Amino acid sequence: MDKFMQVAIDEARLGRSQGGIPIGSVLMRNGEIVAQGHNKRVQELNPILHGEMDCLNNAGRQRTYRDTVLYTTLMPCYMCAGTIVQFKIPKVVVGEARTFGESREFLESHGVEVEILDLQECVDMMNEFITAEPTLWNEDIMEL
Amino acid sequence: MDKFMQVAIDEARLGRSQGGIPIGSVLMRNGEIVAQGHNKRVQELNPILHGEMDCLNNAGRQRTYRDTVLYTTLMPCYMCAGTIVQFKIPKVVVGEARTFGESREFLESHGVEVEILDLQECVDMMNEFITAEPTLWNEDIMEL
Repeated sequence: MDKFMQVAIDEARLGRSQGGIPIGSVLMRNGEIVAQGHNKRVQELNPILHGEMDCLNNAGRQRTYRDTVLYTTLMPCYMCAGTIVQFKIPKVVVGEARTFGESREFLESHGVEVEILDLQECVDMMNEFITAEPTLWNEDIMEL
Repeated sequence: MDKFMQVAIDEARLGRSQGGIPIGSVLMRNGEIVAQGHNKRVQELNPILHGEMDCLNNAGRQRTYRDTVLYTTLMPCYMCAGTIVQFKIPKVVVGEARTFGESREFLESHGVEVEILDLQECVDMMNEFITAEPTLWNEDIMEL
């Protein structure tokens, strides 16, 4: 297992253990973790803190992101994909894109490299959550 | 002056008075303000709290945004535009798009109505800020 994706998965599992949505993220630069985070819609009543956004929030003000890679357990939504493009993050490593995600073409059309690991562990984690908490999941992806 | 845009401008001016970036936003539903906010990169050392994101943060968890309009003093960046698309906000009213903004085509291609008021007051507010604080502005739009 990629060690940065493992940290992102650990973040996702932490979020789920808090009653939240199991999506985690890591920002990496030069082989080191700059910041990590997980979805906090439930924990902080906050609709903008998806896993990727919480991670970037935790990273604080960075002079540049051109030398970073963002890891996320799930294919980014358009909020997070738009943020990756705006922040000029050159590469995203994604745990899985089977349960959600339509932003790949948008990301790639803006020059972002998208690597999908297609990890069964990430698929299982999302499927367990979506089955257990369908209303919460639909709220998070604005499908209510 | 549109009264919701006036509140967004007041938010932007409040942000500037705090040493921050003068961009403000209002979320409106049924002729009433749901939430308002302004860019807080400087105030909270937070790169994701653009004016629109701070406003949506302040609105908390909403069941739907399909009946809302988002007002912003400046054309949204891709982070904020991606958020508008993801949240299914059907309409954005923009103070001005002369000093910044390339997301109009992206928004419209995803069915978002974009109304640009082209207010000189908003242009002047941004030009004053960009001239006074070019490095801070370039940090906010990731052009450092």
